[in-house]
Amino acid sequence: MTLSKNRIKYIRSLEQKKNRKADKVFLAEGPKLVGDLLGHFSCQFLLATSEWLSRNQPLSVTDVTEVSEEELSRASLLKTPQQVLAVFRQPDEETDVSVISRSLCLALDDVQDPGNLGTIIRLADWFGIEHIFCSPNTVDIYNPKTVQATMGGIARVRLHYTPLPELIRSLKDIPVYGTFLDGENMYGQSLSKNGLIVMGNEGNGIGKEVKSLINRKLYIPNYPASRESAESLNVAIATAVVCAEFRRQAAL
Amino acid sequence: MTLSKNRIKYIRSLEQKKNRKADKVFLAEGPKLVGDLLGHFSCQFLLATSEWLSRNQPLSVTDVTEVSEEELSRASLLKTPQQVLAVFRQPDEETDVSVISRSLCLALDDVQDPGNLGTIIRLADWFGIEHIFCSPNTVDIYNPKTVQATMGGIARVRLHYTPLPELIRSLKDIPVYGTFLDGENMYGQSLSKNGLIVMGNEGNGIGKEVKSLINRKLYIPNYPASRESAESLNVAIATAVVCAEFRRQAAL
Repeated sequence: MTLSKNRIKYIRSLEQKKNRKADKVFLAEGPKLVGDLLGHFSCQFLLATSEWLSRNQPLSVTDVTEVSEEELSRASLLKTPQQVLAVFRQPDEETDVSVISRSLCLALDDVQDPGNLGTIIRLADWFGIEHIFCSPNTVDIYNPKTVQATMGGIARVRLHYTPLPELIRSLKDIPVYGTFLDGENMYGQSLSKNGLIVMGNEGNGIGKEVKSLINRKLYIPNYPASRESAESLNVAIATAVVCAEFRRQAAL
Repeated sequence: MTLSKNRIKYIRSLEQKKNRKADKVFLAEGPKLVGDLLGHFSCQFLLATSEWLSRNQPLSVTDVTEVSEEELSRASLLKTPQQVLAVFRQPDEETDVSVISRSLCLALDDVQDPGNLGTIIRLADWFGIEHIFCSPNTVDIYNPKTVQATMGGIARVRLHYTPLPELIRSLKDIPVYGTFLDGENMYGQSLSKNGLIVMGNEGNGIGKEVKSLINRKLYIPNYPASRESAESLNVAIATAVVCAEFRRQAAL
């Protein structure tokens, strides 16, 4: 099978959310990422160089096209195409809020940058956080830049898009954390093994309504304490530092 | 003064390192960032909307051009231009290795992504790390994407480009840390208030020669311990989690 112009056009159309949503599919590229996802998601079709194909047999994908590097680069959204590109089916998402009472989960309130979301999914995977609840305006998990930045974490971390105020109001006696410049030094707090850590938008932080529902306000100390300088951390960085501290305490 | 085509061309040429280097200048955009940098770097010229100019008087910049949003967007490298764009002079860099014996410093071994470098500068600023030593192949600090991602940290954190093996060999009895999958759990280690933390390239980690010179190998524990899943953290994320732990211990 050869690579048709229509297929190239279709692949490139998946940069747009509306096209991904219409067909319930998403794009992933590169041997490491595609390799990770093949075991987790149903693959609609795959393009790969002969080199990649020879190293990956048998392959349980029906629709496979062998392509040259040059053909791959015409379909790829990456600056440097990497041997293989695959279109996967988006899994059906089920929201089970009870996971928040049993485990530590994240909530993202309008995170906008695809790279930040992907990086957060990757670090959630590292820190064993399996569920992330996202406000409806949070960037799409299936944005190709997000998928790439997860480095495979998308196969193991579940995202649920749902209005956060309603979600938080439905929780009873479960700690809901957020980071604030006027919060309590997190190193002085006893942090739980379950509950929700809310992280906010890159420019505006956590929205007003969600903020009013947070019952444990944390502060990531800068150094030296009370030094006047940096005013904030990138949202993925702040998420990592907070998750690391929850997990350090959990392992004590 | 009106905005000439030549000036637009000049500004856009600063996306390339060779052009920045030739004139020893760099570009910054947006009210927050430009505002932070005006007090720290010599400004060669500045373009701004009347709105920004009316809010920022007096201004100690000789070469100022009032521009419309439309004119600004023709010069800007950002997707969404933000009121002001300025070209600053690169400061002369002096490398004083003795800071490593007195304070905690970072070393970056071929970090390639401009956004990662900018994010690392921003978090170094937060954690009071004032000096970062970079291998010569590390991405340029004056890359516009790096400058933007520092969120002003570039005004307070000094970068020194120098071969890392020679640098590390010149240090005597100073701890040199790095993170490795086979390192010691960092939470079980007594971490110093001085020394060097080495972070590696996005794909390949720390180079072989530098690795052999690291005397304190650390591991950032994943969770639950020994779970098979995520294989790595983004370099900026790992840097943040390590720096946070050094500073937590230092504040105890």
